[in-house]
Amino acid sequence: MTVSAEQRFSHRIALELAAKRHLCAGIDPSAAVLTDWGLPDSAASAERLGREVVAASAGVAACVKPQVAFFERFGAAGFTALERVLSDAREAGVLVIADAKRGDIGTSLSGYADAWLTPGSPLEADAMTVVAYQGFGSLTGALDHVRDHGKGLFVLAATSNPEARAVQTARREDGRTVTQAMVEDALAYGHPDDHYVNSVGVVLGATLTLSDFGIDTASAPAKPALPVLAPGFGAQGARIEDAKSIFGGLAWAMLANESRGILAGGEQGLADRIRTRAEAIAAAV
Amino acid sequence: MTVSAEQRFSHRIALELAAKRHLCAGIDPSAAVLTDWGLPDSAASAERLGREVVAASAGVAACVKPQVAFFERFGAAGFTALERVLSDAREAGVLVIADAKRGDIGTSLSGYADAWLTPGSPLEADAMTVVAYQGFGSLTGALDHVRDHGKGLFVLAATSNPEARAVQTARREDGRTVTQAMVEDALAYGHPDDHYVNSVGVVLGATLTLSDFGIDTASAPAKPALPVLAPGFGAQGARIEDAKSIFGGLAWAMLANESRGILAGGEQGLADRIRTRAEAIAAAV
Repeated sequence: MTVSAEQRFSHRIALELAAKRHLCAGIDPSAAVLTDWGLPDSAASAERLGREVVAASAGVAACVKPQVAFFERFGAAGFTALERVLSDAREAGVLVIADAKRGDIGTSLSGYADAWLTPGSPLEADAMTVVAYQGFGSLTGALDHVRDHGKGLFVLAATSNPEARAVQTARREDGRTVTQAMVEDALAYGHPDDHYVNSVGVVLGATLTLSDFGIDTASAPAKPALPVLAPGFGAQGARIEDAKSIFGGLAWAMLANESRGILAGGEQGLADRIRTRAEAIAAAV
Repeated sequence: MTVSAEQRFSHRIALELAAKRHLCAGIDPSAAVLTDWGLPDSAASAERLGREVVAASAGVAACVKPQVAFFERFGAAGFTALERVLSDAREAGVLVIADAKRGDIGTSLSGYADAWLTPGSPLEADAMTVVAYQGFGSLTGALDHVRDHGKGLFVLAATSNPEARAVQTARREDGRTVTQAMVEDALAYGHPDDHYVNSVGVVLGATLTLSDFGIDTASAPAKPALPVLAPGFGAQGARIEDAKSIFGGLAWAMLANESRGILAGGEQGLADRIRTRAEAIAAAV
C-alpha cells in the first residue's frame, strides 16, 4: 500500500500545528484518576474515560496520547478497551500517539511496530513513543513502518524525572550526550514527503534546562521541523507561557502533553477543560 | 499478602541453578518461526507454540522467556494467548521471565508492574525485563512488587546488538558507564530474604567483551549472586563452552537464553532439543 504525502502523520500533525493546535490530551486511566471520575478501577472504566477524551478532543486538541501502561495493567481486557478507544479516534479523525515506550531490537522491535503502526492492526495508532537504550539503530523495525505506512515516532530523549539525568547526560565516545545523539539521529531521519514536520520526533520534558542535556534549541531546523512531545506542563510545574523560552526553535512543532489538569474533575466539564487548555496553549506558542 | 522466602523468585531460581538448570527457553512466536512450525501467523499459533515450550521445559529448563512483542503484534487476541501460556506455566511450576522491556516513570511504570508482577493478574509472571533509560530510580514502581510480591527484575545493561554500544558505554558524570551503573544499582538492591540470588538481575549479552562496558566480572559477589539473563548463545554466535570465561564470577547465576536453536524444526523433536541444550549448558557452567 502506498501512502500519499497527505496521509502521512508528519503532514497531518503539521496541519494541526498550522491551525495552532498544540495540545496533546493525555488518556491516563490510572486507579487514582478513575476514582476521581467516580468509576470502578476496571478495563471498562478505562475504555469509557478514553472514549470521552477522544470525543472531547476532536477538532480541539492536536492529538491524544493514551498511556498504554494504564490499559496493560488489565491484561488482554485492557487491550480490548484500548482497541475500542483507538477505533473511536480513527473514526473521529483524531491523531493518536500511543505512549508505549517500547524498545527492543530486530524482529522483536518489528513485532511492537506491527502492533502499533500497521494499518489494520487492532492497536493501530498514528505514532508511538519508543525507547532506544539499545541505540537509535535498534529502531529499524519501526522506521520501516514510518517509511512504508506514513507513521510517526517519538524517541525518548530528555525526560523530566530527576533520576533520568545521569543516564541522559552521559557522554558517548563521540563526545555527544545520550540525549543529544537521540535528537540528532531523529533529525537525521528524512522522508522525502516530510515537507513541514519530520516523521520522527523526540520526547523532551518541559521542566528541563535543555542546554544541560547538550541540546541547542537555537540551531533547530525550521523545515522540516522536529516534532517535540513535551510532558511537564501544568501539574508537573512548567508554565505554558514559558514554552517559547524553553523550546526556542523547537517550539513551533511542540506538542504540549497535559493529562492531570484536563482529567481532574471527571466527565463533567471535560470538554470545557480541554478547550480552555487548548486555547491557553495556542495563545502561548 | 506476605510472601515467604521460599516463594520468592530469587529463591526459586536459586534452586534451579543449584540443580544445574541454566537454560532459559525462549518463546518467540515470530512470523518466521510460526512458518517453520507449519502454522498460520496467528494468535492461536503463538499460544500453541508457547504452551508446547512450557510443557517441554518443565523440570528441564530453569525458566521460559516469552518475547512479549511477538504476542502484542496480535493486539488483545495476542495477550489472551499469552495469558493462557502464562497460566500453563504457573500450573506446571515453570518460572517465567516476561521479556517485556518495559520502562517508564511513576504511576506508568507501576501500571506495567501491576500487569506483569501482581499475583492474580492475568499476565502474572515471576520476573520481567525492564529498561531504565529514565534512570534506575524510575523503576521504583516495579521494585515495590519485587519487595511485596517476591518477584524478580532483569534490568537491561549491556546488549549484543552493535548499535547499543554507543549508548551503553557512555560515561556518566560520576565516571561510570551507563552499563556499569545499571549493574551496580541492581546489585545494590537488597531484600533480606535474598540469600543465594538477588531478586534484581541484569541482561548482559554473551557476545560482548564485558570489560569494554566497564564490567569487572571478577569482583562479582558470590552471595547473593547477581542473576544474569544472557542472550547471545547459539545462533547469535557465543559458545556455551565459553560461558565461564565470558561471565567469570557472574557465571554461577547465569541464565542462558536460547530461542532459535530450540524452536527451529517445529513441535517434532522440541522436547529433545530443549533437553539436549539444557544438558550442554549444565556441562559447560
